[in-house]
Amino acid sequence: MTLRTSANRSKPPGKRVLPDAPQRIALRVYYEDTDFSGNVYHASYLRFLERGRTEFLRAIGIEHSRIFANGGAGGFHFVVRAMGIEFLKPALMDDTLLVETCVNGLGGASIEMRQQINRGHEILLTAKVRIAIVSGGRARRIPAEVFEKLKLVVPTTHENTLS
Amino acid sequence: MTLRTSANRSKPPGKRVLPDAPQRIALRVYYEDTDFSGNVYHASYLRFLERGRTEFLRAIGIEHSRIFANGGAGGFHFVVRAMGIEFLKPALMDDTLLVETCVNGLGGASIEMRQQINRGHEILLTAKVRIAIVSGGRARRIPAEVFEKLKLVVPTTHENTLS
Amino acid sequence: MTLRTSANRSKPPGKRVLPDAPQRIALRVYYEDTDFSGNVYHASYLRFLERGRTEFLRAIGIEHSRIFANGGAGGFHFVVRAMGIEFLKPALMDDTLLVETCVNGLGGASIEMRQQINRGHEILLTAKVRIAIVSGGRARRIPAEVFEKLKLVVPTTHENTLS
Amino acid sequence: MTLRTSANRSKPPGKRVLPDAPQRIALRVYYEDTDFSGNVYHASYLRFLERGRTEFLRAIGIEHSRIFANGGAGGFHFVVRAMGIEFLKPALMDDTLLVETCVNGLGGASIEMRQQINRGHEILLTAKVRIAIVSGGRARRIPAEVFEKLKLVVPTTHENTLS
Repeated sequence: MTLRTSANRSKPPGKRVLPDAPQRIALRVYYEDTDFSGNVYHASYLRFLERGRTEFLRAIGIEHSRIFANGGAGGFHFVVRAMGIEFLKPALMDDTLLVETCVNGLGGASIEMRQQINRGHEILLTAKVRIAIVSGGRARRIPAEVFEKLKLVVPTTHENTLS
Repeated sequence: MTLRTSANRSKPPGKRVLPDAPQRIALRVYYEDTDFSGNVYHASYLRFLERGRTEFLRAIGIEHSRIFANGGAGGFHFVVRAMGIEFLKPALMDDTLLVETCVNGLGGASIEMRQQINRGHEILLTAKVRIAIVSGGRARRIPAEVFEKLKLVVPTTHENTLS
Repeated sequence: MTLRTSANRSKPPGKRVLPDAPQRIALRVYYEDTDFSGNVYHASYLRFLERGRTEFLRAIGIEHSRIFANGGAGGFHFVVRAMGIEFLKPALMDDTLLVETCVNGLGGASIEMRQQINRGHEILLTAKVRIAIVSGGRARRIPAEVFEKLKLVVPTTHENTLS
Repeated sequence: MTLRTSANRSKPPGKRVLPDAPQRIALRVYYEDTDFSGNVYHASYLRFLERGRTEFLRAIGIEHSRIFANGGAGGFHFVVRAMGIEFLKPALMDDTLLVETCVNGLGGASIEMRQQINRGHEILLTAKVRIAIVSGGRARRIPAEVFEKLKLVVPTTHENTLS
């Protein structure tokens, strides 16, 4: 579960890929994720994406329970402000999926992430997620310690081909 | 959404019924509740039962958000300690279900509820749920104001035929 | 649960509103919908939106289980192809929310819907959803009987102010 | 993800343990699993247990999607008929949990499983689950190929100490 800075080097050209340094997690599709159409329920993908973001943050040293529990003055948590999602192909029961996450942009009070869910070489879903920091019910600037960690994983050039 | 104290009077004999004064809520089965077998996912019924218990408590004047928000010394919340569930028949997409809830027993530190999920005249599921009160991470005696409200809806005789 | 064609007539000017003929459902926030931040979990809103779309379709005579069960040549179901969601304010435990749904555009093979989640006069979330029709695992043209029903609820002019 | 037949040998005496040959999976608690009380939502544990059963079955060569897809005469799927669950201690955001699953009994038409959710040395939850086989909407005898696989993992003596 470490960042791979050259992860996309070997991808064939012409494929839509995430910018450098995506964080990857593998997950399995279970009964709970499917619906009566036989495919994965559309909102289940958001749970998968959120697992990907949580592991991304953990990999760079940011843990939800710790920053949240650290209440009072410094306690804060992340909230999703906006999402754009393209559902390209359905995932199925028992599938093994790969969730890729990377930071695409970083402002003083918000983080933009790009995410992708793959099954083998197929891209099933792409998403753009805007995250904000909330403390005491109000939006805040990203705390310095978190900002420094995120800055290390933002691509300096934005030549990504996701959309 | 009011308690009906003679709700079961007209039920035909021989049917498994809840003891007096069940609280009823109607709900619809949506995509989110089903799984790829085509039926309702088994854990979804627990969500339905919890909605039933929440509305039961609300109907007798106990609201989760209010008692929980009332933090510090008096803030507490309910936790499920044990459940026994019989899944008798599957519910399907678009079904309208009825969740019946009643208090079956009341101790100093725990509440025993009986619940049933029906579709028309069919009983799809029966459950026995033991609830405890937690405050500051520890089990507590049921606060007096809550106990008084619950006492009013516990059947004095326990001639229920649920199991 | 009937369509109200003049539903927005009395809305104060300057408010972001859905185009005419939104379908409204009310729903309650339960334990199941929240997460440890104390607010509603972001993916739970997608479940609420999907309930809104299901009831919208039911209100104009389209029922998921019936069209899906009608397998073989004619059986089909709806899939979400794309979503854009703005999470404006958090919903909380015990809140009563209103989900508004309307058709914003209609193509030969896809439906564009606008949705909004309100709590009283506050808009908590806005969404734009593109739906496609799938049969036998492949995208299809919207069946004539469904298309005719949808056409009746598409606004002829697109002066909506949602985005 | 292989069965360990002597898994409990080294457990300290006096601890409640599963009978031999439990199948173990590790999982992480995410936002999606928690509720506004700050703990894991009670129905989320049923999703964890179901993942454990699915991996248990997969480990002995039984895959849901394959047996279900094999429709017509031979297609079947598993359904939960009854569950008894003790919720002993709450799991929290970011916890790593271990789900242990074993077959406790095997009838012609039903399987009894015991399951346990642990966090380190703490037992958070114990469950007893009765599973049946359904095909074409009706309960069936366990197919021979499945029965043979299950028979290999049923303990011959039932000296388990779960409850």
